[in-house]
This record gives sequence, structure tokens and C-alpha cells, in this order.
Amino acid sequence: MQRGQLLAAACPSREVLKHMTSRWGVLVLMVLETRMHRFSELRRTIGGVSERMLAQTLQWLESDGLVDRIAHDVVPPHVEYRLTPLGQEAAAKVRGLADWIEINLPRVLRARALRRDEYAATR
Amino acid sequence: MQRGQLLAAACPSREVLKHMTSRWGVLVLMVLETRMHRFSELRRTIGGVSERMLAQTLQWLESDGLVDRIAHDVVPPHVEYRLTPLGQEAAAKVRGLADWIEINLPRVLRARALRRDEYAATR
Repeated sequence: MQRGQLLAAACPSREVLKHMTSRWGVLVLMVLETRMHRFSELRRTIGGVSERMLAQTLQWLESDGLVDRIAHDVVPPHVEYRLTPLGQEAAAKVRGLADWIEINLPRVLRARALRRDEYAATR
Repeated sequence: MQRGQLLAAACPSREVLKHMTSRWGVLVLMVLETRMHRFSELRRTIGGVSERMLAQTLQWLESDGLVDRIAHDVVPPHVEYRLTPLGQEAAAKVRGLADWIEINLPRVLRARALRRDEYAATR
């Protein structure tokens, strides 16, 4: 019963789902899917993310085994983030969802406009 | 540039992504994918959701055109929720992600345990 597990409040899969589908988790996975990135690069690429939230998101993904943090032993310190093989799979699934949203956004926006019109007509 | 849109802070697709991948949005889509449900049934099926959060989630999904709210004109009032055709597609994508997580949860939990051990070894 795959589906039953996720519906149970105590299932640890809920937490993984939360990390992967968090506001920034989705975007970090999608950006890292293209190639490894430094922290500052990630921050520049993802519009609107704060340093704190990006660090938190990377920690979550790292603790779930989706992202590797690679610290090069040089001066000045040089840290990069890249997807693990598990993270590559996760990123592909998340991208499937994100791509669907991008492609179907016009349908969503039409649905919203229609609902606004219906609402206006009942006033 | 599909991916570029979602990375821009102002893109409306970010909002749709937020609704679909919200803590409860994922679970509501997955439950409604099986069949239409009444509010009280949804609440019973999804462990831990409050009345307020379930109502908010259904409103989001309704405004995005993913869920239809069907009010039967009877006494006592009888309201049901079901996926629109757009919602069916969305639910399938979300389920793909959720199924991946359920299947790969053991790998995630192993990664977490490994990291805990590494951390303990460095103390």
C-alpha cells in the first residue's frame, strides 16, 4: 500500500516529500540537475531565495542523501553542491511536475479568469 | 525556456507549484484521484489535516481549475469535491513523485543513518 503510507501522519516519507517539494527544494533540485553549483551561483540563479533559506534547503537535501556538499581543501574555501545518483532520480521526478505546470499554466490561468467572471456575475 | 520561467521570482507558475506541492495539496490530489469525496471523507482519509487547512487547500486547487466543488441542492446540504480533467493530469504527476518517494524511502533513510554515523565519528 504505497499510497496508504503517505496518508498516515507519522510516515517519514511525508518529511522527504516536504523537503523535495518545498518552495526552494524544487528549484534547487532542478538547477543542480544541470550541473554542480557553488552556493553563490545557486543563489544568483534562483530568483528571490534568501541566503538562510537556501542554506536550510541544501541541508535538508543533503541529509536526505539527495545532494552532496563537496568542500575543496583550498584557500579561499571552495564549496560545491551536486546531486547524488538518488538526487538525480528525485530531480527528474520534480522536473516532470514542474514541466507539466509550465506547459499547462495557460489552462490554469484560464480557469482562474473563468472563476473570477462567474463570481462577478453572481454579485 | 520552460525552466527559466519557474526560476523567475515573479512567475505565476511558482504559485501553482506551491498549491500542488503544498503539504496537503499533494495528498488531496492523490485521494481525489481515486474518486470524488465529501469534505468529511477527505478529512478522515488524510491523517493530521485540520478543517481550516483542508478548506484552504481545496480553495487553492479549485481556483487553479484542478478541483470542482459540486454542491447538491438537497437538505441537508451535500457538497462533493472531484478532480477536473486538468486536475487528473496534475494528480498523476504528483503521484509519480509521491510513488518515487515511497519506493526510495529506504535509500533516503540509509543516507540519513550514514550521515549520522559520519557526524558521530568526527566528534
